Amino acid sequence: MEKTIIKKKMEIKLKNPVLIEGFPGLGMVGRIAARYLIKQLKAKKLADLFSPHFPYYVLVNKKGSVRLLRGEFYFWKNKNGKNDLLLLTGDQQAQTIEGQYDVASCILDFAEECGVKMIITIGGYRQETEDTPKVVTVSTNPELLNKALQAEAVASPAGNPIVGTAGLLLGLARFRNIGALCLLGETRGYLRDPKSAKSVLSVLQKILGIKLDLSGLEGEINKTNEIMEKMREIEERRETYAHKIRQMEEERITYIS
Amino acid sequence: MEKTIIKKKMEIKLKNPVLIEGFPGLGMVGRIAARYLIKQLKAKKLADLFSPHFPYYVLVNKKGSVRLLRGEFYFWKNKNGKNDLLLLTGDQQAQTIEGQYDVASCILDFAEECGVKMIITIGGYRQETEDTPKVVTVSTNPELLNKALQAEAVASPAGNPIVGTAGLLLGLARFRNIGALCLLGETRGYLRDPKSAKSVLSVLQKILGIKLDLSGLEGEINKTNEIMEKMREIEERRETYAHKIRQMEEERITYIS
Amino acid sequence: MEKTIIKKKMEIKLKNPVLIEGFPGLGMVGRIAARYLIKQLKAKKLADLFSPHFPYYVLVNKKGSVRLLRGEFYFWKNKNGKNDLLLLTGDQQAQTIEGQYDVASCILDFAEECGVKMIITIGGYRQETEDTPKVVTVSTNPELLNKALQAEAVASPAGNPIVGTAGLLLGLARFRNIGALCLLGETRGYLRDPKSAKSVLSVLQKILGIKLDLSGLEGEINKTNEIMEKMREIEERRETYAHKIRQMEEERITYIS
Amino acid sequence: MEKTIIKKKMEIKLKNPVLIEGFPGLGMVGRIAARYLIKQLKAKKLADLFSPHFPYYVLVNKKGSVRLLRGEFYFWKNKNGKNDLLLLTGDQQAQTIEGQYDVASCILDFAEECGVKMIITIGGYRQETEDTPKVVTVSTNPELLNKALQAEAVASPAGNPIVGTAGLLLGLARFRNIGALCLLGETRGYLRDPKSAKSVLSVLQKILGIKLDLSGLEGEINKTNEIMEKMREIEERRETYAHKIRQMEEERITYIS
Repeated sequence: MEKTIIKKKMEIKLKNPVLIEGFPGLGMVGRIAARYLIKQLKAKKLADLFSPHFPYYVLVNKKGSVRLLRGEFYFWKNKNGKNDLLLLTGDQQAQTIEGQYDVASCILDFAEECGVKMIITIGGYRQETEDTPKVVTVSTNPELLNKALQAEAVASPAGNPIVGTAGLLLGLARFRNIGALCLLGETRGYLRDPKSAKSVLSVLQKILGIKLDLSGLEGEINKTNEIMEKMREIEERRETYAHKIRQMEEERITYIS
Repeated sequence: MEKTIIKKKMEIKLKNPVLIEGFPGLGMVGRIAARYLIKQLKAKKLADLFSPHFPYYVLVNKKGSVRLLRGEFYFWKNKNGKNDLLLLTGDQQAQTIEGQYDVASCILDFAEECGVKMIITIGGYRQETEDTPKVVTVSTNPELLNKALQAEAVASPAGNPIVGTAGLLLGLARFRNIGALCLLGETRGYLRDPKSAKSVLSVLQKILGIKLDLSGLEGEINKTNEIMEKMREIEERRETYAHKIRQMEEERITYIS
Repeated sequence: MEKTIIKKKMEIKLKNPVLIEGFPGLGMVGRIAARYLIKQLKAKKLADLFSPHFPYYVLVNKKGSVRLLRGEFYFWKNKNGKNDLLLLTGDQQAQTIEGQYDVASCILDFAEECGVKMIITIGGYRQETEDTPKVVTVSTNPELLNKALQAEAVASPAGNPIVGTAGLLLGLARFRNIGALCLLGETRGYLRDPKSAKSVLSVLQKILGIKLDLSGLEGEINKTNEIMEKMREIEERRETYAHKIRQMEEERITYIS
Repeated sequence: MEKTIIKKKMEIKLKNPVLIEGFPGLGMVGRIAARYLIKQLKAKKLADLFSPHFPYYVLVNKKGSVRLLRGEFYFWKNKNGKNDLLLLTGDQQAQTIEGQYDVASCILDFAEECGVKMIITIGGYRQETEDTPKVVTVSTNPELLNKALQAEAVASPAGNPIVGTAGLLLGLARFRNIGALCLLGETRGYLRDPKSAKSVLSVLQKILGIKLDLSGLEGEINKTNEIMEKMREIEERRETYAHKIRQMEEERITYIS
């Protein structure tokens, strides 16, 4: 395998499809959101993406079998609306600089082939927050941006970098005249953050004009809250000791000065 | 040399060949097992694999000559059974991500050319264990998996990553309709582990329906046991001192708090 | 995107154009100088350069939109002189070794296409200095070098390496019979250094025979001076403590020796 | 520049040429030896090798000009003997794994084009030694190896890795039926080591049947000896202090145990 490849499982005709992308990244927000969407919508598998730029290991699955790391395209036929969905998630991002550009280009080739005219990428936005995470947005298209702002997303500050596939898809979509929007859920980023993914999905359903049941995320949100509570306790205890050691060092210095 | 290449030393017709791969990795389990197999079966050299993704040094051999790092294919004509063997080992694994995918693809090209319809890869599985190392297995094919489980291998837990050539061969074999099985011997991984290789070979002979004399590994197993015993002693002594220093630090903190 | 590409925004005929390059680097001297030049001359955008060797993130701009990292070519029609200018700056340099050579070659392809017969690259030269930064120069062409020395640049010591695009453009220009000159402003290098950029621009205007108003850099120079003053204070305080700790350690050693 | 290229400065017919290679490496032994040889023999420049795998900087030379990093081929017409020499040295080695294989292959292409039938590579062999450094040798050809042993080189121990161009040229020469020999001068490796280069040249002249005046290396040898003497003094003083600190730590532990 010398190049990134996409293996289709079937031929399907999609109606004005919107591509929703959520790869792993900060707080796993993109991946959690995309996978929840796929599950809730009972989306069907359309294709796999394999790449020599993914890490070089395989994963064991539940049946004792094994598979390459991959991206997965799913589709959802929207009977009541005007846009079918093409959903993309994956195990890992490309690991080299050139690989990142290659995988993003390959995704866009496939999106064009499927007739995609609009892309929404999902990721995390590093921000310390106690409350409901906000959703930060940017778009290559003012109309799309407005739609996101009306759905209660907030505009990203200028100069903010969007790293990886979620960012490159927007940057490269311009060359193909595909409108693209990015939704970034606020997250501390070092733990899986289903709460942030929920915020993003809540904005996303308004943009897409679909109705999602997001209660299925509550279980994971509670679990994450517990882990964070424990980590905070440990951190406080560590800080108490660190403070005492710093005091002692200062006393030493005072003593000799 | 811009690409991975395979240089054949002879033309040979193999009968339903099974490819057995054992490259260096965790505890060197794959390499030890493959090399022992080659030696025991008096397998003959068929081809060399060279790659610009291997490390950029050459090795001096006993005759004062020198050679590139390489993979080596051997073959064994199985007079009493229905599967000849194609055996593969090597000095090192590919050093870059893209190189790993390239070398694995090149091995599969050659396997196809030789008519291989089944692949067994060997590696290590990180696990602290005092007893006889277990052999953990996965397969792309339920029938093959069953064969391994009957030979007293145990199924791998889901989510386990299999790194490097042993894993990628399985992942990539799917695209070619070649059934593939992986046997991972439990090992601590930081020392050569002939005991783990022995466990793997003991399972492998049952799967292949051949009989191997594994007593030749005992010498190396004893040597490794001695080294581990010494390392344990050193570790204990170091821990005694480290414990005293920690006590002292705690006293300091108690004193100032 | 597998290769570095240049996207032209218009067709333009330039008169004996000189290419001025200033990418980010030591003290950001090249980028500050090139951007100031573009602004002062009201140069017009000619083309964008995109590369899979740039970092894999996109940048949010003021309008809530987003773009790939890029190089930017501007042009300036010199009504009173004999050389039009082609100006190049960018967000980042290529991140891999091979990428650096690829981007520099791509720039030279475009320069040739535009009829460029002379290149001036701008960068920083690491040097501790309190006074007005000097401008260090080298050239592939003795005549050009003389011009720079007459404009009060000083010759670079032999053996000095010039890293990145500013250097490679000179090295590779030789193969194309394009004369090239490099102007390096002295800088400590760890902070944006508009003072050094000013020195470079002051030399550059003499070489080009144009007149620039450099007073627009004073605001940024003052801001940098303030930051440096604060850093110096912090450094002094830190050094006082470090000195006391070293004294204490020496006393300990004296005590036990 | 996407590939390694060689630019010839003239057409020349060489008589049974032997290629001598000395790139930078351990103790700079190869480079010092090759450059001394070129100077002593008044060899003439034949070609330059440029590569996108060399580091991405350029070097300023004495005339205020600048050049890419490069390899340099020189030739020497041997009027009294049967082998002309093709001499190769360079500024740096290729910086990536794949680049190392690419540069070595490119050198061999050129060697074949020049009719080279024998290659001698020079490098360093890490060894603490106070006396005259020995020269360690390996060869792809038993006859060549014997010649080197008769010239007082010693055979390399088996398993020794030879890193970089000096090694890869030997490994890859095999595919082209070019006999190759490697001469490694013993060196501590962390300083330029002209003494080791002298040992290598002394062996080399016997192999080639030519007579070299090696006294020109004495100046640099004395300078290196002085630096080493100073480094030894500093090291001793540091060790005295380190010893005292260790004693103190042990006392602390004794005290609390």
